[in-house]
Amino acid sequence: MAAVSDFIDGERLWRRLMQLARFGETTEGGVDRPALSDTEIEARAQLVAWGRNIGLVPYTDSLANLFLRLEAEDPDLPPLLIGSHIDSQPTGGRFDGVYGVLAALEVAEAVRSSGIVAKRAIEVVAWTNEEGSRFAPGMMGSAGYAGLRSVEAIHGLKDANGITAGDAVGRVLASDKDVPRRPLERPALGYLEAHIEQGPILESLGIPVGIVTGIQGKRTFRVAIEGEENHAGTSPRSARKDALVAAIAIVDALQKAIWDKEDIVRFTVGHFTVSPNAPSVVPARVEFSIDLRHPDPDILARLGDLVEPLAKDHAGACDVRVTQLLHDAPLAFSGKMQDLLAQSASSADVPAMRIASGAGHDARHLQAICPTGMLFIPCWKGVSHHPSERIEPTDALAGARVLAQAVEQLVR
Amino acid sequence: MAAVSDFIDGERLWRRLMQLARFGETTEGGVDRPALSDTEIEARAQLVAWGRNIGLVPYTDSLANLFLRLEAEDPDLPPLLIGSHIDSQPTGGRFDGVYGVLAALEVAEAVRSSGIVAKRAIEVVAWTNEEGSRFAPGMMGSAGYAGLRSVEAIHGLKDANGITAGDAVGRVLASDKDVPRRPLERPALGYLEAHIEQGPILESLGIPVGIVTGIQGKRTFRVAIEGEENHAGTSPRSARKDALVAAIAIVDALQKAIWDKEDIVRFTVGHFTVSPNAPSVVPARVEFSIDLRHPDPDILARLGDLVEPLAKDHAGACDVRVTQLLHDAPLAFSGKMQDLLAQSASSADVPAMRIASGAGHDARHLQAICPTGMLFIPCWKGVSHHPSERIEPTDALAGARVLAQAVEQLVR
Repeated sequence: MAAVSDFIDGERLWRRLMQLARFGETTEGGVDRPALSDTEIEARAQLVAWGRNIGLVPYTDSLANLFLRLEAEDPDLPPLLIGSHIDSQPTGGRFDGVYGVLAALEVAEAVRSSGIVAKRAIEVVAWTNEEGSRFAPGMMGSAGYAGLRSVEAIHGLKDANGITAGDAVGRVLASDKDVPRRPLERPALGYLEAHIEQGPILESLGIPVGIVTGIQGKRTFRVAIEGEENHAGTSPRSARKDALVAAIAIVDALQKAIWDKEDIVRFTVGHFTVSPNAPSVVPARVEFSIDLRHPDPDILARLGDLVEPLAKDHAGACDVRVTQLLHDAPLAFSGKMQDLLAQSASSADVPAMRIASGAGHDARHLQAICPTGMLFIPCWKGVSHHPSERIEPTDALAGARVLAQAVEQLVR
Repeated sequence: MAAVSDFIDGERLWRRLMQLARFGETTEGGVDRPALSDTEIEARAQLVAWGRNIGLVPYTDSLANLFLRLEAEDPDLPPLLIGSHIDSQPTGGRFDGVYGVLAALEVAEAVRSSGIVAKRAIEVVAWTNEEGSRFAPGMMGSAGYAGLRSVEAIHGLKDANGITAGDAVGRVLASDKDVPRRPLERPALGYLEAHIEQGPILESLGIPVGIVTGIQGKRTFRVAIEGEENHAGTSPRSARKDALVAAIAIVDALQKAIWDKEDIVRFTVGHFTVSPNAPSVVPARVEFSIDLRHPDPDILARLGDLVEPLAKDHAGACDVRVTQLLHDAPLAFSGKMQDLLAQSASSADVPAMRIASGAGHDARHLQAICPTGMLFIPCWKGVSHHPSERIEPTDALAGARVLAQAVEQLVR
């Protein structure tokens, strides 16, 4: 009897990737598809249509996570979840997240085509707001599903326009009234997620599949500096409380303090706003983000603990307030899932290697409630979150075949 | 016969100041009245109504400068202009600019009440977009009037929403159709402007009027840094082109290079924007402003010339483009006008002193086409461009009385 992986259709998968990229496509050839936006609502509708067309039943929940369920012999057994997310960064690419959802859809279609008898249901899932650029922090839908954050706390988050996540979810649910709503937290047999690497390793080694061993730890902070507005032409330097001058001193001091020769620390100030932001007015307020990551939990703890004291030391005449938003320790995926993925790559004749993830993924949260595994495929120059984000169709196919092989082992 | 200054009504002046502060008033007690905005249109209508009520005839021009003309014996002689501006910074106060316009209106009313025969017309003027926070650079209306910038260049400027100054002017002119439009450049006998000091000197010395000797020089720049977007979790420091890291290194280097022990240099980075401005994305672009001022033309030239080479030296892997937007040499006001204002203060029994201006003013441009003078009144702690901006009614009265005395000498 043929394996499920033999029914994976690389051309169909690629066609769907290109079709989904149209929802929110930008003039630069990338994608701008904010979580819970109109563009994402349209992309969801496309997923639901594809799913229904191959006999999958759509469900959603109080966080607008989207599930496409392939029913099984025994509907009461916890299902196997496979998927990722379809929201993007403001200047995102066509593959981050979407590849994992459409590879999962391809696997579900291949399972049906293969005629195998699945004992367990398979659910293709698209988690809500993985990117966290509209509502921070991200990985919102999977965090709620795994019971790691409360629905109330998540619904209360606000975007830059003051719209709450609760209202945004409500709009999405209203838009697909014919998709039944289920309780949020549900048991799962396991979770598998395919994703682009977002780093340069697989491409440089010419290996089409990476079996992800774990995710480095991450701490994020918001730093708010309060100075005093003043006239750029008349106020002497010594009398100013310039929030921008303080912010620059703080970031400069942090950069120096966390610098490592080995270049393993990841330190990013990605969000930085100045108020009133007028050329001839001394800035009264600056708010900026810190994203700090490291694979070693002790180093991550030590470096993150430098943020508040260094900020206070370098704020000059301004007031500074540091808020930690997130402290995720480094995480290891299920050893059994790693081994299963390695065997599946071998069975499918796809070269593979073990690899660590620099980025966070929804799989982090699922590991808290069920055995979880991830596989990476290469992306061009390691670039992601950019219109030039690119993958090879042959790698997309290879990843889906390995995923199919693993799914077959888990649901038969 | 009584002097015009005896007809200055301090209470009426104060009442009008409070009434005009309602157009664009903020919850913090300040004013947000952008140039050429709906709020400014309403404030203009109020000025026109007050002017008509005391027999002044309104005029405007292709930059929406507003004139309220008190006709004279000989209508063909170039008029004496007195005024300032009514636009504000985004978080401005109630007196910056407005004091000069309403003191001028009070003087015009006093001239009428006094019954003196004015040989020259007096025109109370409110110049368009002095602040430059909506359309940069500022002092737009007076620059066009004095022929220092072309109307075409000014009309082509865009605000943050992409609206051109030309379109914004068009909206204002459409809103007051009953105000006749005159040619832009016109000869003037002279120009007098009253303004709050925006510095702490007069208040600390307890002197109600400053006779302004000149304005320090100013150079402004826009610095645009182009890096590369990347993923905060996966891209190593050595592979990044982080535009924010480059911007911080550049501002830091500039601060050190222009630092002076005497604290005379004024260096401000007031506008600073980051793109895409998302917490987990390495910034691809930063654009910031530099506002540099000094009373010595040689020092100003030397320090300003450091900006481009230092920016290029500290941009790291990013590209940087430096554009100078403005280079105004230090300026001295007409000696005759200074002497006239000093005599007027003495005649009106108002203590006065000579003082230099740290801020730029429309008077700078008028000095290019006619003898120009300025007087300052104290403001609380030297604070301006802030909701807490404050003046004393007694100082407001003193300034208007000195202005009235000088106007009387010039138009009789």
